[in-house]
Amino acid sequence: MKMFKKILYPTDFSDISKKALEYIKKLKGAGAKEIVLLHVIDEREIEKFSQYAKPYLDVEEIEKDNEENIRQEMKDLENQLRESGFSVKSRIEKGIPFKDILRVEKEEKVSVLVMGSHGKSCIEEMLLGSVSEKVVRKSSMPVLVIRR
Amino acid sequence: MKMFKKILYPTDFSDISKKALEYIKKLKGAGAKEIVLLHVIDEREIEKFSQYAKPYLDVEEIEKDNEENIRQEMKDLENQLRESGFSVKSRIEKGIPFKDILRVEKEEKVSVLVMGSHGKSCIEEMLLGSVSEKVVRKSSMPVLVIRR
Repeated sequence: MKMFKKILYPTDFSDISKKALEYIKKLKGAGAKEIVLLHVIDEREIEKFSQYAKPYLDVEEIEKDNEENIRQEMKDLENQLRESGFSVKSRIEKGIPFKDILRVEKEEKVSVLVMGSHGKSCIEEMLLGSVSEKVVRKSSMPVLVIRR
Repeated sequence: MKMFKKILYPTDFSDISKKALEYIKKLKGAGAKEIVLLHVIDEREIEKFSQYAKPYLDVEEIEKDNEENIRQEMKDLENQLRESGFSVKSRIEKGIPFKDILRVEKEEKVSVLVMGSHGKSCIEEMLLGSVSEKVVRKSSMPVLVIRR
């Protein structure tokens, strides 16, 4: 059994996501070798923002800056994981976070997921359920949910 | 950080629960040392059964047999874990599974929970949410949910 060999690590760069990274490093002792690092840009948030801001701001410019920041955050995480001896694949997707996490889980044939329990948008998540709750419910692989 | 050191392993002796055991053994490499093995007898099921069966069967006798079976299953799991080099504490509780799991999590100050995603009573769980979903939502520690 592969168990902890290939880990999908979805991150929104929140503090809990960063805590999840420490657990991943520790899982090396349990056979973890490959990490698929994933960030999903929530297209619904982009649309909402764009709708309100368009009359006042250069929305395209802001989106570009945002994507540049994301690429930088991903690079930092990649480096950290490589320094810990993992082989790393990095993916940035645009869509609906929990759906894309489940899609990438299948595409990459990972053996386990490690993720934070709550993301950045806390109020919405309290009303509608968190991304991790939806992933736990629908995933076909084991999920390790890290708490604050 | 303790991370994987002290694991709470709630089990209902289902197949997924047994799969969870394999993950626990693997976590030895990530620092797992102590296992709190827990079975919660669902008092609501006992009551329901007792209510319907009392006119026809010796309910007390059946409950005693059932508890004897549980003790035997727990012994088997304890032995397996001890043979794998863990120190083991075993608890049998009577109550409502997700509530007692969360209570024992606090009492035993475990660092992580490992459990199956679904238990034996599948139809009820599909309607009301599984024990593991409730635990993931309310736990203050990381939870590794194992799938079928």
